[in-house]
Amino acid sequence: MNRSDSRILLIRCPDAPGLIYKVTGSLFRMRANIVSNQEFVDNPASTFFMRTEFTGNIQEEVLLSELARQLPAGHELDLSPLRRSKVVILVTKEAHCLGDLLIRHRFGELEMDLAEVIGNRSELEGLVNDFHLPFTLVPTDGRDREEQEAELDDRLASLEPDWIVLAKYMRILSPSFVKKWGKKLLNIHHSFLPAFKGARPYVQAYERGVKIIGATAHFVTENLDEGPILVQDVIHVDHSYEPDRLMLFGRDLEKIVLAKALRLLLERRVTLFRNRTVVFE
Amino acid sequence: MNRSDSRILLIRCPDAPGLIYKVTGSLFRMRANIVSNQEFVDNPASTFFMRTEFTGNIQEEVLLSELARQLPAGHELDLSPLRRSKVVILVTKEAHCLGDLLIRHRFGELEMDLAEVIGNRSELEGLVNDFHLPFTLVPTDGRDREEQEAELDDRLASLEPDWIVLAKYMRILSPSFVKKWGKKLLNIHHSFLPAFKGARPYVQAYERGVKIIGATAHFVTENLDEGPILVQDVIHVDHSYEPDRLMLFGRDLEKIVLAKALRLLLERRVTLFRNRTVVFE
Amino acid sequence: MNRSDSRILLIRCPDAPGLIYKVTGSLFRMRANIVSNQEFVDNPASTFFMRTEFTGNIQEEVLLSELARQLPAGHELDLSPLRRSKVVILVTKEAHCLGDLLIRHRFGELEMDLAEVIGNRSELEGLVNDFHLPFTLVPTDGRDREEQEAELDDRLASLEPDWIVLAKYMRILSPSFVKKWGKKLLNIHHSFLPAFKGARPYVQAYERGVKIIGATAHFVTENLDEGPILVQDVIHVDHSYEPDRLMLFGRDLEKIVLAKALRLLLERRVTLFRNRTVVFE
Amino acid sequence: MNRSDSRILLIRCPDAPGLIYKVTGSLFRMRANIVSNQEFVDNPASTFFMRTEFTGNIQEEVLLSELARQLPAGHELDLSPLRRSKVVILVTKEAHCLGDLLIRHRFGELEMDLAEVIGNRSELEGLVNDFHLPFTLVPTDGRDREEQEAELDDRLASLEPDWIVLAKYMRILSPSFVKKWGKKLLNIHHSFLPAFKGARPYVQAYERGVKIIGATAHFVTENLDEGPILVQDVIHVDHSYEPDRLMLFGRDLEKIVLAKALRLLLERRVTLFRNRTVVFE
Repeated sequence: MNRSDSRILLIRCPDAPGLIYKVTGSLFRMRANIVSNQEFVDNPASTFFMRTEFTGNIQEEVLLSELARQLPAGHELDLSPLRRSKVVILVTKEAHCLGDLLIRHRFGELEMDLAEVIGNRSELEGLVNDFHLPFTLVPTDGRDREEQEAELDDRLASLEPDWIVLAKYMRILSPSFVKKWGKKLLNIHHSFLPAFKGARPYVQAYERGVKIIGATAHFVTENLDEGPILVQDVIHVDHSYEPDRLMLFGRDLEKIVLAKALRLLLERRVTLFRNRTVVFE
Repeated sequence: MNRSDSRILLIRCPDAPGLIYKVTGSLFRMRANIVSNQEFVDNPASTFFMRTEFTGNIQEEVLLSELARQLPAGHELDLSPLRRSKVVILVTKEAHCLGDLLIRHRFGELEMDLAEVIGNRSELEGLVNDFHLPFTLVPTDGRDREEQEAELDDRLASLEPDWIVLAKYMRILSPSFVKKWGKKLLNIHHSFLPAFKGARPYVQAYERGVKIIGATAHFVTENLDEGPILVQDVIHVDHSYEPDRLMLFGRDLEKIVLAKALRLLLERRVTLFRNRTVVFE
Repeated sequence: MNRSDSRILLIRCPDAPGLIYKVTGSLFRMRANIVSNQEFVDNPASTFFMRTEFTGNIQEEVLLSELARQLPAGHELDLSPLRRSKVVILVTKEAHCLGDLLIRHRFGELEMDLAEVIGNRSELEGLVNDFHLPFTLVPTDGRDREEQEAELDDRLASLEPDWIVLAKYMRILSPSFVKKWGKKLLNIHHSFLPAFKGARPYVQAYERGVKIIGATAHFVTENLDEGPILVQDVIHVDHSYEPDRLMLFGRDLEKIVLAKALRLLLERRVTLFRNRTVVFE
Repeated sequence: MNRSDSRILLIRCPDAPGLIYKVTGSLFRMRANIVSNQEFVDNPASTFFMRTEFTGNIQEEVLLSELARQLPAGHELDLSPLRRSKVVILVTKEAHCLGDLLIRHRFGELEMDLAEVIGNRSELEGLVNDFHLPFTLVPTDGRDREEQEAELDDRLASLEPDWIVLAKYMRILSPSFVKKWGKKLLNIHHSFLPAFKGARPYVQAYERGVKIIGATAHFVTENLDEGPILVQDVIHVDHSYEPDRLMLFGRDLEKIVLAKALRLLLERRVTLFRNRTVVFE
């Protein structure tokens, strides 16, 4: 599907009568062709959300100013072409999420340019190189967090990614780093959040004796493992699963959930609202 | 949630530019308030679908004629209040689906009036009576199908149901009966269709050695078990499940799937198109 | 399946070589016929678990003393016929779990005698009566917990149930009550524990923005919602599910999960170990 | 987990009293240490299955002859060390299953030596080479099936694999080839078999309007897509999924299901019986 001339319009504003009519009217008069259209009203918050994908040779400035006049005060508009995003992946030493993304990227499944993989350890450098992609080591060993994060921040600043994927990056990020990059930071947590926050969730799950384990893809916020959730999935387990086996089967969950969440971001299907996400699938 | 003054508008028409704009414009000018709105374009068939729930004191005739003028030729409109539907349930002797619907009905979970339960055997009469609801026996034993169906047809004609739920009604209906009532006939089949059509699907599943079994709620068409599907669900099984055990666990699937499908119908969320359903959840 | 002469032997003991050989040898020499046999070794705890279902005219005392001689010190043996259990159900005002159990019981799906339903409110009395079963009101309104629990305790003591099912019984039980009855108390919690412990889990789930909700059947311990888990299941949800809708769909999970857990107990498939369960399905 | 000295004993024989006692007795007397033990009786077929993993310095010949004396006529015994298997992967041009297996193999998740990847087309040669593994082209283009299969057969004969994984190998194999290699041939089919056998299952699924799609890992038999099933899994879909999108999401199912099935084979957890599998997980 050639979507090269598609644009995505994301709207969030206080709910009011006639919003869909006004937005689709502006697009209709500019001879845009709506490819798909989804709306959602958060009733408790009286807030309207809309995602419209359209084609056509419209003037973005004109559309935006027309919408700004018609929509209630407090609206947020985001209009951009459905272009390939620039992605940076951060890793430590576990290969399954990175490997899965590398395969998907190589065979064109994800609409992204993979600018670079950054590791705080070097174990995965060989894999990245074998995919003919750049790997940068920004080591944590022997340095304090401040120094390491400064280097990481520089590197990211120079790369200017649209999205930063923490593919089992096992370092806690500082509040200031999260404040700067958080809206672009996608993390995979190896539990069904909010169960088993923090370290070693599979050991926690084993000790609690749960009959289901999960994985959660979420945005990163200052409160660890409490960011807005994009995708979750689970599998059934039983008493015979020790932590190693939970981890083994959990990996398959983690990589699929992370890839699904990344695809949602690349297709611009996610709007943040409070500590939640509105996902137009 | 008091939806007593809600109306549902279902639209199906050839795709064209500006459809959402035109429909929401008509509603906006009549001061209707859109509660929820969903659209879908079937691209291969170039067909547009829309479901709009709205409130407001509008004149139905005026709205319909305005829409008829604006929409492309070949459109189908269905506008009706979100009232309680009248439902008849057909059973044979298995209790789990009927029992589940009776409990839901008694405690107001489903927006329906349960007009009557009709059985072709008498085993479930006591249960229905204990729920203080009418049971009518239209027996199959000792009669040919034609005679039995004529009586069933008479009974249904006098009841004028919106929906007829086959809750494990284990008789094959004649083509003429299906032709007359098919659009109101909701059936539950105890397999993941199209696998294991026909009789004894759990035995078939056992013999094939599948690792998953399912249940399917579907409309009834002349071709047995080939009607449009509304809801499906599955559970994992293993080699140790003999047919009796498949049946035992399958029952839980059947009753949940059937109730979900019925709720979709009661909330007017389903549009038929070719041999498929468009379901706005 | 006529299992009237089946016996279930549950064993828990320190792991050692030859345990299966010794147990099956004793059964073989007594000409018992093993219907099914399952073992599990908890390696971190070096503990052996076994469930054997067998038929045959054996002398229970002889078998038990022979096993006691052969098994390592610290073993626990539980031998009993696979008879129908006596069950009491405790409810408040929500009908879906109770209704589901009543239907299953009426049509012989569960190997139990339903001795009585006890409510701390009277809303469900009519339903129970319509199933021709006794309902006892042990009200909480206008009384302190101590008084109410004393009456409940008396009633249970006179009924001598094998299992007590809390089918949405919305009162917190005192530590002394739990200490006395806890090993027989099966509860359904309307979340995927350990996420959303405590009150109003669906509201908590909504506010956290999870993409999956669950239900958990567990034994009751003094620490609320922290008892050993028997069965869990989940469904996928999205941003459009407000708490009411989470509750509506969650009910289907709750009743299926609770019934599954009860069936495991009735079939004597569960062994408690620390804060976990070993479930031989 | 170091399992280097583990052995797996798989038994299939007519059911009889005392089988577990006899087998575990032989192992006990030879001072073997049972790591895990699972049994299953197929009651309709009156057939006993057992999988025992044990350690200890036993003499295999002695164990086998002792068991042969004790077990009923018609028994089948398979005793072998839990060593790494030799695997050959056959591919055409789709990368997702192969890529997933290559990543797992590279990071030691699967206990296998990946001897070679054989393609009937050359598209995936680069990927295999980048993993530093041999790729052999046995082309189908411009040749008749007989000639191509003869070359494939030669290549396999020289490699002597334990398992041959058809990772989206899109050629139908001849009956004689299947007869020779079928017990080692693991295939992934992109539907929930037996639904949608044959070509283009996602298009079939779209046209039938199913609400769930699946993937099936199975042994290959002469009747296409009718071999014994090892693993199946599914995902929910809706009316908006066109065949391309079904394929996109189906790929994730396919690769996970195939890898799970291969792991079961590598861990020797599968016994074939009639057209079914007994899987000791």
